[in-house]
Amino acid sequence: MKQPNIVFMLTDNIGYGDLGCYGGGITRGAPTPRLDAFAAEGMRLTNFNVEAECTPTRAALLTGRMPLRTGCHRVVPPGIRQGMAPWEYTLTELLNDAGYRSAIFGKWHLGNIQTRMPTRFGFEEWWGVRDSSAPAIYGELIGFDPREMDQPMLWEGHGDGPCAPVEAYTTENRPFVDATIAEKSVAYIREHAGSDRPFFLYVPFSLVHHPALPHPDFKGRTRTGDFADCMVECDHRSGQILDAVDEAGIADDTIVVWASDNGPVLIPSIGPQADSGPWRGCLGTAYEGQLRTPCIVRWPGRVPAGAVSNEIFSVMDFYRTLATLAGAADRVPTDRAIDSCDQSDVLLGRTDKGPREHLLCFIKDELAAIKWRQFKIHYVEFRPEAGRRTRIELNNPQLFNVEQDPKEEWDIMEPNTWIAEVLNRIVRDYYASVSWCPHVPFRGVGPGEKGDIDAELAAFEAGG
Amino acid sequence: MKQPNIVFMLTDNIGYGDLGCYGGGITRGAPTPRLDAFAAEGMRLTNFNVEAECTPTRAALLTGRMPLRTGCHRVVPPGIRQGMAPWEYTLTELLNDAGYRSAIFGKWHLGNIQTRMPTRFGFEEWWGVRDSSAPAIYGELIGFDPREMDQPMLWEGHGDGPCAPVEAYTTENRPFVDATIAEKSVAYIREHAGSDRPFFLYVPFSLVHHPALPHPDFKGRTRTGDFADCMVECDHRSGQILDAVDEAGIADDTIVVWASDNGPVLIPSIGPQADSGPWRGCLGTAYEGQLRTPCIVRWPGRVPAGAVSNEIFSVMDFYRTLATLAGAADRVPTDRAIDSCDQSDVLLGRTDKGPREHLLCFIKDELAAIKWRQFKIHYVEFRPEAGRRTRIELNNPQLFNVEQDPKEEWDIMEPNTWIAEVLNRIVRDYYASVSWCPHVPFRGVGPGEKGDIDAELAAFEAGG
Repeated sequence: MKQPNIVFMLTDNIGYGDLGCYGGGITRGAPTPRLDAFAAEGMRLTNFNVEAECTPTRAALLTGRMPLRTGCHRVVPPGIRQGMAPWEYTLTELLNDAGYRSAIFGKWHLGNIQTRMPTRFGFEEWWGVRDSSAPAIYGELIGFDPREMDQPMLWEGHGDGPCAPVEAYTTENRPFVDATIAEKSVAYIREHAGSDRPFFLYVPFSLVHHPALPHPDFKGRTRTGDFADCMVECDHRSGQILDAVDEAGIADDTIVVWASDNGPVLIPSIGPQADSGPWRGCLGTAYEGQLRTPCIVRWPGRVPAGAVSNEIFSVMDFYRTLATLAGAADRVPTDRAIDSCDQSDVLLGRTDKGPREHLLCFIKDELAAIKWRQFKIHYVEFRPEAGRRTRIELNNPQLFNVEQDPKEEWDIMEPNTWIAEVLNRIVRDYYASVSWCPHVPFRGVGPGEKGDIDAELAAFEAGG
Repeated sequence: MKQPNIVFMLTDNIGYGDLGCYGGGITRGAPTPRLDAFAAEGMRLTNFNVEAECTPTRAALLTGRMPLRTGCHRVVPPGIRQGMAPWEYTLTELLNDAGYRSAIFGKWHLGNIQTRMPTRFGFEEWWGVRDSSAPAIYGELIGFDPREMDQPMLWEGHGDGPCAPVEAYTTENRPFVDATIAEKSVAYIREHAGSDRPFFLYVPFSLVHHPALPHPDFKGRTRTGDFADCMVECDHRSGQILDAVDEAGIADDTIVVWASDNGPVLIPSIGPQADSGPWRGCLGTAYEGQLRTPCIVRWPGRVPAGAVSNEIFSVMDFYRTLATLAGAADRVPTDRAIDSCDQSDVLLGRTDKGPREHLLCFIKDELAAIKWRQFKIHYVEFRPEAGRRTRIELNNPQLFNVEQDPKEEWDIMEPNTWIAEVLNRIVRDYYASVSWCPHVPFRGVGPGEKGDIDAELAAFEAGG
């Protein structure tokens, strides 16, 4: 079997309800015709689940492991040197070992020191945002003191050399970042389309994270403001990459995935942004509105066009699934806990029944909820109200049937207490896995605390 | 132009988010393949607005007038003799006068006395539910005393004779009502398909109103309980009627409309029912989750297949629109206030811009909200929380941009106070219309209180 190219577009903070093909588009004042057409050519997932926020989702995608296992279970405030441990065996490294070339154009957010940059995890090329796009606005904020923090930068990296800052990341160039991401991605596709070697191109757009500042070509394109303009731009940028694949004549040999990294931001000081569609909740909660994001997979002739799957699918599952589709299933490590399920039969339309029955939902280092079949248990309540990011202890866990009750309003723990037995088994299995494969601690270098990130960086800086 | 047949299916209490083509279906545990395919053959409206509850919506559909004008602005508890005034000139009568024959199979809920039954408003045949389906369960309820109220019945009527009760309406036959509605509708279509005279067939299903008891053929068809089973049944029943149209060879000559009468019920003693999709709110509120329901219009070769329109469309608009499409626009009365907009150009794909810029949203006799373009003002807040149907006075009206903010969470009245001028003009225009065309009072016989409903009934019973 010829190994397919893989293009993985990951957008930032787009909610389940924003795309036309997910019930948004014109109702949101922001049509998304390119992505709607793309969905009609591939499979649309309606139960695709991400992790609690940006960093954990990206770690889960690249490692196939629950973020708490990798120490990448939360976004870290500026000023702390950290990142994913090089001990992890990323999807990129796995694909490279199976013959791929690879690049990332866009946002990393999995490390802020030289030893934990994309090029240390298999990506041969990088241009983009190191951490979040949020700091791009710092310079505009009342009372911000630039002496108190390092200037946020845009970065690039090539091969084995150190990554380097390119320019300051500000509201001046924020609107142009995704044009560059698309341009570099298109150039990469064109350059390598004719090669015998397949490529893995990871495109983590900075759109539509706040500050949501559209490119001038898109400013005012809608009647609904900057966020909607950014949605229209994102549709266009995604379309540029799809066009490059199609025009290079490699559409049939290329798996294209399009997804979002987490649910909508709901913060009064930011104002209305993305929408969670029919689900309750937002970023910072464990409700379906945070867990479920849009995800579309196209592989013409292989993934059935126009299909829709509601099987539970985790962002972690792409690790094993893409390994399988790349003919490299045997490269998935067995020396560590891998939480990825092989969903290739679902994507290829060979089965209506997915391999994943449950999903553990952590917020930071706390088990907030578990999904099992159509049920969902919350052990603690992270409230979705705007303006109050509160965590409420529950005297009893709450159980919801998310098919009957997509907005998680009807607690049916009583009389369904039988489910506790299932859920307790899932939790026991998880703890058993931790006992043979300990977590990599935050800022750690491997399972258990066997090293020191500062020493790692010092050695690097000494040329080690 | 040949006058098209019109089949208007109106379901009971299905929410915006329940059908597959509106983001529900498999995510709700209840696939709706027939209606999804039907939507692909016609136009799907994403900003179709109904009135505050069952009775007002049905009055608005048949009169093209705001329910407060017709005295049909609320569901009336059992035991009060009432109904829509015969003075109203219904869509049915208009179409009959233009050459149509007409029938209703299903739920009426626009009058409970002989002078206000469907056959008094132009329908030549009727079989179905006179009021709500809710009373079907009364006999099962703890403490219910049948001596305290009349037994709810199923009814029928033909031509000019009085309507007659057919059998008691109970949980015994509740599951079979929609099979009969579909069967009678199918028979009607077959009987009249070959006629030179076009027909108007109004099919107000009793599905999926509580008690949501599926037909035995559908009981247990889903893993998600009775409501989901009823959704699957409703999809099937709708499909039976579509099949009858297609098999009779009249698809190209038949406008088929499918809609729901109001948003989801959210009542703890009933449990999870329909879903509002991406919108906030439920029956009893003025949020978009109550106002917007699914609505699909098919007319092969005339209404563009697979189209989606987000233009504001009111259930009232079908009055003028269907009159136009039936070549009978000149029959729309000019002696009374008609609130219906002619949306035929929207449906026929001749314009992307609808004729309706605003919509007044009453709850009972109170102006709760106004929609204008993408904005929505709430003058009073009807809270959507389960278990508390509360009405909250607002010190200041709340303004939302429902494109930016589908869940109506971000009040932007400040700094958008300029909109008050627009909205005040709309309200002034409404009051001006009331001054030349007074409301028909509740239980009234015409504009202003010019008669007496009890005298009307007494005269009827005396053979008058």
